Amino acid sequence: MSKIDALKQRLYDLNAIGSANAIMGWDQQCLMPHGGAPARAAHQGILSRIQHEMLTSDETRRLLEDATAEAESAEDKALVRIVQRDLDLSSKIPAELVEKQSRLGSEGHELWVTARQNNDFASFAPTLEVMFDLAKEQAEYLGYEDHIYSALFDLYEEGAVKADADRMFDGIRGPLVQLVKDIKDSGVQHDDSFLHSDWKDQDQLDFTAALAKTVGFDFNRGRQDTAPHPFCTGWSVGDIRITTRCQEFLGSAIFGTLHEAGHGMYEQGSPMAWDRTPLAGGVSLGVHESQSRTWENIVGRSKAFWTHVLPQLQQAFPATAGVDLDTFYKSVNRVEPSLIRVEADEVTYNLHIMIRFELECALLTNELAVKDLPDAWNAKYEEYLGITPDSDSNGCLQDVHWSGGMVGYFPTYSIGNVLSSQIWKVLANDLGDVDALMAAGNFEPILEWLIDNVYSKGSSLKPGDLIQQVTGKPLGPEDYLDQITTKYRAVYGLS
Amino acid sequence: MSKIDALKQRLYDLNAIGSANAIMGWDQQCLMPHGGAPARAAHQGILSRIQHEMLTSDETRRLLEDATAEAESAEDKALVRIVQRDLDLSSKIPAELVEKQSRLGSEGHELWVTARQNNDFASFAPTLEVMFDLAKEQAEYLGYEDHIYSALFDLYEEGAVKADADRMFDGIRGPLVQLVKDIKDSGVQHDDSFLHSDWKDQDQLDFTAALAKTVGFDFNRGRQDTAPHPFCTGWSVGDIRITTRCQEFLGSAIFGTLHEAGHGMYEQGSPMAWDRTPLAGGVSLGVHESQSRTWENIVGRSKAFWTHVLPQLQQAFPATAGVDLDTFYKSVNRVEPSLIRVEADEVTYNLHIMIRFELECALLTNELAVKDLPDAWNAKYEEYLGITPDSDSNGCLQDVHWSGGMVGYFPTYSIGNVLSSQIWKVLANDLGDVDALMAAGNFEPILEWLIDNVYSKGSSLKPGDLIQQVTGKPLGPEDYLDQITTKYRAVYGLS
Repeated sequence: MSKIDALKQRLYDLNAIGSANAIMGWDQQCLMPHGGAPARAAHQGILSRIQHEMLTSDETRRLLEDATAEAESAEDKALVRIVQRDLDLSSKIPAELVEKQSRLGSEGHELWVTARQNNDFASFAPTLEVMFDLAKEQAEYLGYEDHIYSALFDLYEEGAVKADADRMFDGIRGPLVQLVKDIKDSGVQHDDSFLHSDWKDQDQLDFTAALAKTVGFDFNRGRQDTAPHPFCTGWSVGDIRITTRCQEFLGSAIFGTLHEAGHGMYEQGSPMAWDRTPLAGGVSLGVHESQSRTWENIVGRSKAFWTHVLPQLQQAFPATAGVDLDTFYKSVNRVEPSLIRVEADEVTYNLHIMIRFELECALLTNELAVKDLPDAWNAKYEEYLGITPDSDSNGCLQDVHWSGGMVGYFPTYSIGNVLSSQIWKVLANDLGDVDALMAAGNFEPILEWLIDNVYSKGSSLKPGDLIQQVTGKPLGPEDYLDQITTKYRAVYGLS
Repeated sequence: MSKIDALKQRLYDLNAIGSANAIMGWDQQCLMPHGGAPARAAHQGILSRIQHEMLTSDETRRLLEDATAEAESAEDKALVRIVQRDLDLSSKIPAELVEKQSRLGSEGHELWVTARQNNDFASFAPTLEVMFDLAKEQAEYLGYEDHIYSALFDLYEEGAVKADADRMFDGIRGPLVQLVKDIKDSGVQHDDSFLHSDWKDQDQLDFTAALAKTVGFDFNRGRQDTAPHPFCTGWSVGDIRITTRCQEFLGSAIFGTLHEAGHGMYEQGSPMAWDRTPLAGGVSLGVHESQSRTWENIVGRSKAFWTHVLPQLQQAFPATAGVDLDTFYKSVNRVEPSLIRVEADEVTYNLHIMIRFELECALLTNELAVKDLPDAWNAKYEEYLGITPDSDSNGCLQDVHWSGGMVGYFPTYSIGNVLSSQIWKVLANDLGDVDALMAAGNFEPILEWLIDNVYSKGSSLKPGDLIQQVTGKPLGPEDYLDQITTKYRAVYGLS
């Protein structure tokens, strides 16, 4: 057996443990009875520790060293590079902390679900406090140069530091705030009341599953379920799972599904030969989010898309039958400061992210105490969006991330927004009249382009290298601001 | 930390890996998209090997040795006894064989589903051949005194050897064949046509879930889904999953659910303090089956049960509204030689088991080749039941067991049938008018008695010791033959 193959055998073992943890996480969010929570937390904690111990063992080190000396192809070099990074990062963290964080993440999820249901921040606060304490401990073990935030941010976006996020937000904050103001000042309001009703869950699930299939999500290699907080996960190129949720606003299921289908198609687009190795799957959370936002917003909120889909929607939901295309298009591109991030429009969305980013930084540096989070959260919403949450459930309890211990994650959403426009510009240039394709319901060339240029690369390139290779330049806000300003000035008839 | 606690920490780790494998198996049978099969097989194989390596490691041996020296309470002694047995059995089997069998079991399941759908035994035969070859290899590693079958039988029923199965079947064969003949000769036929229709799946699922709840299955610590072949599994006292299937015969879902709920309540009845240790859960497959058959047959096919439940059924399925209790009772106790084991009536059921037992023995001793299995199967059905399968799908492809590598399992079904009557006799004696309880829908005293006397013992006693303790005698066919003969002579008006 070659040294590379010997390493791969070890990676397959690690992947089996990681996959087991992933399926446990999926099950917990989608199906698990409440009584299963304590054992699930214990199981997930133990599996995380075992995986960590296996990864950082002398055996893995030796296999990696031997394989590195032998690696010649770009693929093999990429593989050993990724494993080396994982091993280096993991080696800095004690196994006990890994188990503790994983276990608390699983327990925290249950507590968060209940706290959000009951609008009871106090019941969740002690756990959240421990969660942030562990995150700080983890960051100190990992080390950082400029700011404690960077240590955690880098886990989700290789190579990124806090200053990168600052620069990105500085680049988009002014123009976005101005655009929101211009839209407000215009006095124009687009009605979407016809999308609000007591739609049947099953009708929503049937329609959105068909929609996911239409854009190219492969149900032979995946499925869709419901979850309180939509997400995408998977444990094989052949088994990628997306979720959605059914609410009285029909757009919630529709755009939630398109978003998760975007993540899902990215995962499904990895070469099958890389299955169960670290080469498969999306390269970073920012690049991942660029693809979910592409399918949710650039495709899913375009007039061309609805030219094709609106008749189907009106057949599935006859109550929407009287609405014409232009009215419908505007209804799904309403801009209005709102409380819930995942329901936010494209223009205000990044403001939600900036709020979370600033609060995370303050919590990590002890400028803010967890007990004061609700007040700080509400003050930021007033500052950035001019509205105050009516409850913690619709405020600082709305997101799943912190409950699972994910701190330093949020800026990747804005990276995704910005990057989606940058990649789409190249795609549209290559494919020609992309609106005509979408209006004809022909999404295959779009998906094929994305597979060729992005999805089939899996994790083999560093995020920055992938962006450079695909778009010919580093990540920057110009294309995003250009696209969003042009679109929304038209939607709101601004000069 | 005490030596017992140190051992438990190790057992929790082993349990986490085993639980991961169990949830993967559940997901495969209930939800997994077809494309997930190759990775699932690989994952399950790897997890089985890792669990095997951890169990048989020097570390576990040392922890077990230390704990054994320290064990004083009955509970601790039971724990070290069980772990010692697992370790001794596992130590005889090479890790590679464990991985191979687990992987093939996962692959085999997919192949079996397809082969059964397409009535294509030939496509499954090569895999089944390897499966039996591996089973023989495993049996030789395990060792046996009298017969190769005993090595595998013991894995499912501690201490049992082939001669025990022979004796049991010899004890019941004659009376059962005679009873089937008497019923046939009587010329009486009970109609159940009103239970056949194109019932909606959702209605069946709603009704049977309510039924499971009625008898005491706790949905806060479990759930019900659908699967091609109903089963029960779990990975915590707090998370036990049952499945059912919806067919045009309404009894399929009803009795399938009651059967699996019986398994499920047994698992849910273990002390929570034993959760995630080998002390929790049913003690052997035979004792387990005694509980599924108790709830399916002794409770679920009694007139008292339907006194309570028939009005609910008739409300949920108005097409059955005209049927009176006596007619209904007889309809669900029809005796008729049939092709499908899991749909078989109580009287003919064990004949299905004897067929499988004899074929397994012949396959293990090379008296029968896998390629000749369909013919041998059909000949046995003609011999025992007087009917010949119309297809392999309704013949030798009907059961899930061999596809997953489970050889030596079937006799535990007959042990369960026999034991259910033996335990019920004691229960009925203790509780007094148990029919009155059931007719009033009061199943709690029955469940409580079973929890006290059987379920709360978990795996702490050897199966034979448990049977002796609960019923005051070893397993024997008398109570079963008495109960079944009395019941069915009445149902068929035989003198």
